[in-house]
Amino acid sequence: MAKKKDRNRSVDPAVLEILARTEDSGIETAYDRYLKMQPQCNYGEQGICCRICIQGPCRITKRADKGICGATAYTIVARNLVRYELGGCTAHADHGLHSTLLAREVVEGRAPDYEIKDSKKLYAVAERMDVSTEGKDDKAILKELVDIAMEDFSRLDGKDLHWLPRVIVPERTEKFQDCNILPSSIHRTIADAMAQTHVGMDADPVNLVFRSLEVSLADYTGEHIATSLSDVLFGTPKPVVSEANMGVLDEDYVNLAVHGHNPILSEMIVQAAREMKSEAEAAGAKGIKCAGICCTGNELLMRQGVPILTNYASQELAIMTGAVDAMVVDIQCIMPGIQPVSECFHTRVITTSPSVKIPGAYHLDFDEEKAMEKAREVVEIAISAYKERNKEVVIPQVKHKVVAGFSTEALLDLFAAVNPDRPISVLTDAILSGELRGVCLLCGCNNLKRIHDEMHIEIAKELARNDVLLVATGCAAQAYAKSGMLNWDAVEEIAGEGLKAFLGRLNEANKDNLVEKLPLVFHMGSCVDNSRAYDLMTYMAEEMGMDTPKVPYAASAPEAMSEKAVAIGSWLVTLGLPTHVGVVPPIPGSPLVDGIALQIAQDVYGGYFIWETDPQKSAEKILAALDERTWKLRMHQKAKETYETETISATW
Amino acid sequence: MAKKKDRNRSVDPAVLEILARTEDSGIETAYDRYLKMQPQCNYGEQGICCRICIQGPCRITKRADKGICGATAYTIVARNLVRYELGGCTAHADHGLHSTLLAREVVEGRAPDYEIKDSKKLYAVAERMDVSTEGKDDKAILKELVDIAMEDFSRLDGKDLHWLPRVIVPERTEKFQDCNILPSSIHRTIADAMAQTHVGMDADPVNLVFRSLEVSLADYTGEHIATSLSDVLFGTPKPVVSEANMGVLDEDYVNLAVHGHNPILSEMIVQAAREMKSEAEAAGAKGIKCAGICCTGNELLMRQGVPILTNYASQELAIMTGAVDAMVVDIQCIMPGIQPVSECFHTRVITTSPSVKIPGAYHLDFDEEKAMEKAREVVEIAISAYKERNKEVVIPQVKHKVVAGFSTEALLDLFAAVNPDRPISVLTDAILSGELRGVCLLCGCNNLKRIHDEMHIEIAKELARNDVLLVATGCAAQAYAKSGMLNWDAVEEIAGEGLKAFLGRLNEANKDNLVEKLPLVFHMGSCVDNSRAYDLMTYMAEEMGMDTPKVPYAASAPEAMSEKAVAIGSWLVTLGLPTHVGVVPPIPGSPLVDGIALQIAQDVYGGYFIWETDPQKSAEKILAALDERTWKLRMHQKAKETYETETISATW
Repeated sequence: MAKKKDRNRSVDPAVLEILARTEDSGIETAYDRYLKMQPQCNYGEQGICCRICIQGPCRITKRADKGICGATAYTIVARNLVRYELGGCTAHADHGLHSTLLAREVVEGRAPDYEIKDSKKLYAVAERMDVSTEGKDDKAILKELVDIAMEDFSRLDGKDLHWLPRVIVPERTEKFQDCNILPSSIHRTIADAMAQTHVGMDADPVNLVFRSLEVSLADYTGEHIATSLSDVLFGTPKPVVSEANMGVLDEDYVNLAVHGHNPILSEMIVQAAREMKSEAEAAGAKGIKCAGICCTGNELLMRQGVPILTNYASQELAIMTGAVDAMVVDIQCIMPGIQPVSECFHTRVITTSPSVKIPGAYHLDFDEEKAMEKAREVVEIAISAYKERNKEVVIPQVKHKVVAGFSTEALLDLFAAVNPDRPISVLTDAILSGELRGVCLLCGCNNLKRIHDEMHIEIAKELARNDVLLVATGCAAQAYAKSGMLNWDAVEEIAGEGLKAFLGRLNEANKDNLVEKLPLVFHMGSCVDNSRAYDLMTYMAEEMGMDTPKVPYAASAPEAMSEKAVAIGSWLVTLGLPTHVGVVPPIPGSPLVDGIALQIAQDVYGGYFIWETDPQKSAEKILAALDERTWKLRMHQKAKETYETETISATW
Repeated sequence: MAKKKDRNRSVDPAVLEILARTEDSGIETAYDRYLKMQPQCNYGEQGICCRICIQGPCRITKRADKGICGATAYTIVARNLVRYELGGCTAHADHGLHSTLLAREVVEGRAPDYEIKDSKKLYAVAERMDVSTEGKDDKAILKELVDIAMEDFSRLDGKDLHWLPRVIVPERTEKFQDCNILPSSIHRTIADAMAQTHVGMDADPVNLVFRSLEVSLADYTGEHIATSLSDVLFGTPKPVVSEANMGVLDEDYVNLAVHGHNPILSEMIVQAAREMKSEAEAAGAKGIKCAGICCTGNELLMRQGVPILTNYASQELAIMTGAVDAMVVDIQCIMPGIQPVSECFHTRVITTSPSVKIPGAYHLDFDEEKAMEKAREVVEIAISAYKERNKEVVIPQVKHKVVAGFSTEALLDLFAAVNPDRPISVLTDAILSGELRGVCLLCGCNNLKRIHDEMHIEIAKELARNDVLLVATGCAAQAYAKSGMLNWDAVEEIAGEGLKAFLGRLNEANKDNLVEKLPLVFHMGSCVDNSRAYDLMTYMAEEMGMDTPKVPYAASAPEAMSEKAVAIGSWLVTLGLPTHVGVVPPIPGSPLVDGIALQIAQDVYGGYFIWETDPQKSAEKILAALDERTWKLRMHQKAKETYETETISATW
C-alpha cells in the first residue's frame, strides 16, 4: 500500500476517513493504483503513440518524427481522438438504443413491468419531433417516436438525422450541413469514422477532427434520445430532497448499492426493494436502503429521491465500509477493482448486462420481459448477503442534504412562477441586466490524476461567488451533493449577491410549490442528461433570437476521464460552448490539432476548448469566456434600444 | 538515412536496387522509418498498454499489475483486441457498403457508367441468398440482393444476419448460434462491441474475446458482400496473363499507379486510360500504362489483367523510379509517406475518398454518378504530370509473368474439366488419395517488422515442395507475383511430385481453354477476396459432408500488419482454420488471452492460431496441422470403406 499522505488524493472527508482507516489493510484501491502507475507514459499522454496497426506501436520522437507508415504527429493525434470519441459515442448509442428498444417492447406489450409514466413528456417530445398526436393513444405516439429513433440509429440512405435538427437552433443545423458534419445515422457515423482511422486511410488532421465532431453529434443524439425516452418511461424529474455521501448507509439495514448508468434495471430494483421490506426484516434488518453510485445513482436520485452513496473515484471505498451487502451494476464506469475489494468483505458484486461481466462476480442476465422477477433476485442476493456480514461495519458519518431533480422542464417551471408567458426570459433577462454573469454546466467524471472532487468544488465555488448560475450532471453533480453544495445553506454561504438575489426571487415565486429552498447548483441528472443542460441553452438562444455561440453559457469538466467525456466535450464545443477541461486530453503532442481544439473550432463553430489544470485560473478563464459573450450581448441590446436597429450584430 | 546494409530489409531485387541507388538521396521511406522507430514499445507490443480512458495511459508492470481502474492484463489485452478487430471490420464494412450502395445506384439508374456485367454471378448469388429469380429481370434481382445486404448492415431487431448463414455450412451457423456470436447486423455489432470496450464495461476476457469473434464474423460478411457484388458489377475473374514488379513501368509511357482496395474507381480509370491513348500521344508518350499497388492492383489484375507494380511495403519506392506520373489512391493501406516522396519527383498523388485525404496531395472527390468524368480527370492529371518529369527515370528491370484470375468459380471450372458432375471432388479426392497434403491460403500484408516478402516466399516454397495446394490473396499474392511464383516455371522448379501431378492433370484437362499453364500459387484476389478462399473451403466441406474444422485447409499470414488482417485471422479461426501468423499480435501480455487464441479457440471452434516467426518452422507447423486433419480424414474414409459404417467420427 502507498503511504497515507500519498493516498489522500481526495477532498471528500468520508473518503479520507476510509483511506486512513484501511491504510494497513492490504486492500488496494484506485488511489493506490494511481500512485503505483506513476510515471505514466508521456507518449500516450501527448497522444503521439500509434497502435493502429501491428507494425507498431510507433511513437513520435525527435529522432523518429513519423510513424513507420509515414503518419505524422498530427495524423496520429487526430486518429486517436476520433477513436476516443467513438468509445464515448458507442457507449451513449448503446444506452439510447437500449431505451428505444425498451420503449418498443412497452409499445408491443412485451415488457409488462414498464409503462408510459409521463404522458406530458411524450406529447412534448412528439411535438418537437413533428409527430402529430391527434387521435392517437400514447402507445401509438410512442411507437412513432421509436420508429424515428430506430431510423436515426440505422439509416443508410444518406439523409440527415431526424432527431438532432429538431432539438437545436436552425442556425446550428445549417452550420453542420455547411461543414458536412451532420450525421446521417448514429451507427453509420460510428462505422464510417472507425474505418476512416484504419491504417492507410485518412492522414488529414482537419478532415479527421471534423469527422470526430460528426461523431460527437451522433453522441449527442444518442444521449438526447436516452434522456427523452427515459423521461417518458420513468417520469421527468422534478425537485426532490434527499441526501448524499457514505453516511447514507445504515448498519441496521440491508444496504444495496446501485451503480452504472441506466435506469432501466435500477428503477425496478428500487421498486422491488420497497416491496421486500418484510423479507429484509425476516433476515434481521430494519429494512432495505438503496444508494446510488455514478449515473445510475443520479437517475435514481432525480426520479426516486434515492440517496447518493459516492461517485466514480471512490466506488471501491463504499464496499470498504463493510456495510454494502450487494453492489449491482449495469453499464459503464464500473471499476473491475470492485470485485477484489468485495472479496475482502461479504459484499456481492452483481453484473447484469451481457456486455459487462467481471470474473468472480455474480452474473444475472437482466431481461426486460421479466424485469421485476430479476430485480427481486438482486434484492434477495443482497438480503442473503446481509446475513453473512463478517467484518466490522464502519460507516463515515458524513452526509449532506441534497435538493435535486432539476430537469429542464423543472427549471422552466421555476421560471414560470416568475414569468408564466416567457419562462426562459427570467434567466436571460437576469443575464442581460447584469444580475447573473451567465450559466455554467459543471459536468464530467472523476479522474485520479486530480485530487478527487477538489477542482469540481473549487471552480463551482468561485463561479458561484461571481454570480454564475450553475447546473451540474454526472460525477460532478455528485461531488456537489456529497460536499453539501446542493442546498440553500450553500447559497447563503457561497453565492454572490446577484446569484443570491436571483435564486431568492425564484424561491419566493415558488414558495407554495417547493419542498425546499433552491440549491447553489442545480443537479440536472446523469451524463446523458447533459442533453437537458444543452436544451436549456437552446431555449435561451431561441428566446434571444440568436445562435448558441452567442449565449453566455460555458461548460467545465474538471476531472474528465472517460471517452464519453471526450465525446461530450466535443459536442459542447461543436454546439457552441467554451468548454473547460481540467485534465489535458492526449492532444498536445500535435500543436496543430491542439490549435484546432483551442482556436480553429471557435472560428468555425463558436465553441472552443480551454485546457487548464489550476482551479482558480480555470474559474477565471470560464468567467472571461462568459463575460465576453455577455458584454457583446449587452452592447447589442443597448444598440438595439438606442438606435432601434439590428445593424450591430454580435459575432463570435 | 539508415545505412544500406540495415535498410535492405527486403528480398525483392527491384526494391533492393532502388534502396541501394537512393541511399544518399535523403529520401526517407518506410524501411528507414522502421529502423528509426527501434526499439518499439514493449508494452504496446505485448498488448498491455491501455489508453481507453484519459486517466491513463496505464501499462502493466510487475509493480503495477493492474490499471488505475483495476483492469488486469487479460482485460486490457482483450479490450485492445476487440478494438483492433473493429478497425478491420469497419474497413471491410465500409468497402462492402460502398459496393452495395453502388449496386443500388445501378438499380436506380443513377450510376450510368456502371452496369450488371456478370448476370451468371448475379443468379448464383441470388440462389445462395434464397432470392427467387423467376420472372425477374437482372435489376430486380440485384435490387433484392441490395435490400438483403442493406438490412444486414443496419438491422436492429435482433434477428440473425441473412447473408452469413447462407455462405457457410449449417454446422458453423449452429455453432455460432450456440455460442451467441452470430451477428444480428454488421453496424449493430460494431457499435455494441465498441461500447463493450468502454471504460468500466466488460472486464471478462472470455466475453470480450467471444465478442471479438462476433466482430470477425461481421467482418467476413462485409467482405463476402463486397466480393459478390463487385463480381456482379465488374465480372467474376477468370484466368488471365499479366506481369508484375517495377519492370512493368515503361519510361516511354504515361505511368499511372492505382493504389488502394476498391475496384469502383479504378475500373473506370483503366477504361479511361484505354480511351485516352491519343491524349497521351499528344503529350509525347507512347500511351498510358496502368499498374496496381495493394488490393486495387489485385482487383485490376484479376479482372482486367493490369500488371502489378508492387505491394504495401514498397509503395513509396515505385515513385522513386521517377517513372510514376500519378498515383491515384482510394482506400486503406495508403502510406502517408507517399506524399513527401512524391514531392521529390514530378509525381502527383491523387486522393479520391472523402475519408482519405493526405495534406499536400491533390484531392478529387470521386462520384459514382459521374464516374468516367472523374476517371478522365485523373488520367489527365497523369498526362500533364508526364510532361513535367524532372528527374532521371531509373526503372529496375525486374518483372515476371503472372497467371492470375482464380476466383472460386474459375477454380471450379478447372476442376470441372476433370469431373464435370462434382468438380470440387477433384480437389478433395486428391487430398484423400494422398496426392495433396491439403490446401493453404497464403494471405495478409507486408509488415516492416519482417524482411519484406521473405517469409511469404519461404513458406510458400516449403509448402509447395510438400504438395500443398496454394491459394493466395492480398499483398501475399503480390509477393508471389513479383517473385515469379505465379506461373508454370515455378511449378517445374519448386512443386513436389504430388502437386506437380495434380496441376499437370488440370493443365491437361483444360488445355483447350487455358491461355497459359497453371501457376504454383493460385491468385484469388484482394483481401476481401479471402471470402473466395473460404468459399472454396465451404465447398470442400459440403462435398465431404462435414463441418469445416475437419477439412485439411490452413491459412498463413506471415506479415500480418493491418487491423483488417487481425479481423480476417479471427474469422479464419472461428470458421475452422489453423491460422499461422508470422508477426505476433499484441496478445502475449496476457497468457490467458494468448491461451484462448492458441488453444481454447480450437476446443470451441476447431480453428486456432499459430504464432511463429521462423519461416521453416512456420511451414512445418502448417504441414503438421494439415497432416493431422488429413490423417483423421483418411482414417475416417478407410473405416467407412472397411466397415461400411459412420461410427468413427473425425473430431477436432
